Amino acid sequence: MKIFSKSHEMQEWSIQQKRAGKTIGLVPTMGFLHEGHLSLVKRARTDCQIVAVSIFVNPLQFGVGEDFDEYPRDITRDCELLEKEGVDAVFSPSISDMYNPGFSTTVEVTGPVTERLCGASRPGHFKGVCTVVSKLFHICLPDRAYFGQKDAQQAVVIEKMVRELNFPLKIVRGPTVREADGLALSSRNSYLKPEERESGLVLSQALGLAREMIDQGENRPEIVRDAMVELIESRPHTKIDYVEICSGEDLSPLTAIEGEVLIALAVQIGATRLIDNLLLEV
Amino acid sequence: MKIFSKSHEMQEWSIQQKRAGKTIGLVPTMGFLHEGHLSLVKRARTDCQIVAVSIFVNPLQFGVGEDFDEYPRDITRDCELLEKEGVDAVFSPSISDMYNPGFSTTVEVTGPVTERLCGASRPGHFKGVCTVVSKLFHICLPDRAYFGQKDAQQAVVIEKMVRELNFPLKIVRGPTVREADGLALSSRNSYLKPEERESGLVLSQALGLAREMIDQGENRPEIVRDAMVELIESRPHTKIDYVEICSGEDLSPLTAIEGEVLIALAVQIGATRLIDNLLLEV
Repeated sequence: MKIFSKSHEMQEWSIQQKRAGKTIGLVPTMGFLHEGHLSLVKRARTDCQIVAVSIFVNPLQFGVGEDFDEYPRDITRDCELLEKEGVDAVFSPSISDMYNPGFSTTVEVTGPVTERLCGASRPGHFKGVCTVVSKLFHICLPDRAYFGQKDAQQAVVIEKMVRELNFPLKIVRGPTVREADGLALSSRNSYLKPEERESGLVLSQALGLAREMIDQGENRPEIVRDAMVELIESRPHTKIDYVEICSGEDLSPLTAIEGEVLIALAVQIGATRLIDNLLLEV
Repeated sequence: MKIFSKSHEMQEWSIQQKRAGKTIGLVPTMGFLHEGHLSLVKRARTDCQIVAVSIFVNPLQFGVGEDFDEYPRDITRDCELLEKEGVDAVFSPSISDMYNPGFSTTVEVTGPVTERLCGASRPGHFKGVCTVVSKLFHICLPDRAYFGQKDAQQAVVIEKMVRELNFPLKIVRGPTVREADGLALSSRNSYLKPEERESGLVLSQALGLAREMIDQGENRPEIVRDAMVELIESRPHTKIDYVEICSGEDLSPLTAIEGEVLIALAVQIGATRLIDNLLLEV
């Protein structure tokens, strides 16, 4: 397994792979890998001749007061895990390699798709995501790039960016991977104290409640939303950032639960912000 | 010569050329081609196995009250000229192909490099340029892309964008091509009435004056600038937009004329805005 820390070396290697006629799959990550990431890697391994994984905690997508400094990192363990998955190349650049002094180029998707949900509480977040993902696409030259459904809004935003800027690649979404008790895997789960982890289960439980209500015929978004909010607020250590029932395509608000529906929520559990979501075809 | 009007067909063809191991040269244009464009095409023909030329009058880079509607177009003549140059593919998309309803993704280089010179009088212009050029790069997949030195600031901005977003390609600048009397070729010269064309010569004459003064040892930007302004204002139909003496690398202001120096100017001649520049190593 090759490990690259310089973008120009990674890019040169990617160009060589393309010249040799290989298809490249890229799994962009911020490291501290869990089974969610590895499920994307396995999927890429099946689909593509070459699998590259990027590990980069991107300062541009963290806001002031967010957890950039504390974000967990363990590059040694990450590389061991990726080697076992048969990954061909890891790209793990420094911040200064990615952002030279005077860096001032940005890629941005504007409008409702980035203004709502996480975009509302994390201004600039998706601009940071789109900018770094554009760079990673140009450096690693994937035919397919893999993103987790866990970050549902990110997937919608990146798909829009890829379509509108004509990136020559396909975005593949992998399903959210969960612990046995329902907690969606996230590198940020490592922040949770035991009693907070217990409260964190309420995210998937609220989604389960929504699914049940919809299965039983409820189609009024506000009724389902109110039930979710009530459940979440009944648990200690919780503070709702948002609970939204919206179109899975463009995240626009729904007046009735039908079609491709995304139910997404973000909840502060103690000092840790967790997100989860459910995509339904109703 | 292939002529593509759909971005997905052009992209598919570009991918095939890359797979076949061909190097692609792209000359992005807004059409109504003149010898300036053709000099870039000839250069690309020498450098690359495949030459593609895009023809697209990009609404995103025109401001309110600018000449988007009047911008001259002659796609038939353009294609004849390009066929004679041995071009392999012309990409001439419709506006709706390039910008679907709800389009909201932009690429932007911020900071002094886009705030000064043309950026000051044409807000949003370079954002429109960077966005369309990013799309064209993804659609046509060039190894090299060719831009005229005539649009000096555009070249600096695009080189910065390519470097900072890691586009896997090289920007090549071609020298400004001029009429025998010094007028820099531009599709917009077609707007000029005979007496305006005469006044338009003052742009290259002012640059000639600057070069003479610098050759004779003048190194104070304000002295050279004042002489240029005086010359321009002595001619009828002229209204200066800017006359700037700045760093050729990042367009920052200079306190002394030394190093890579860009002397750039924009002058309104009647209703027509003309630009010209001179890049010097002092």
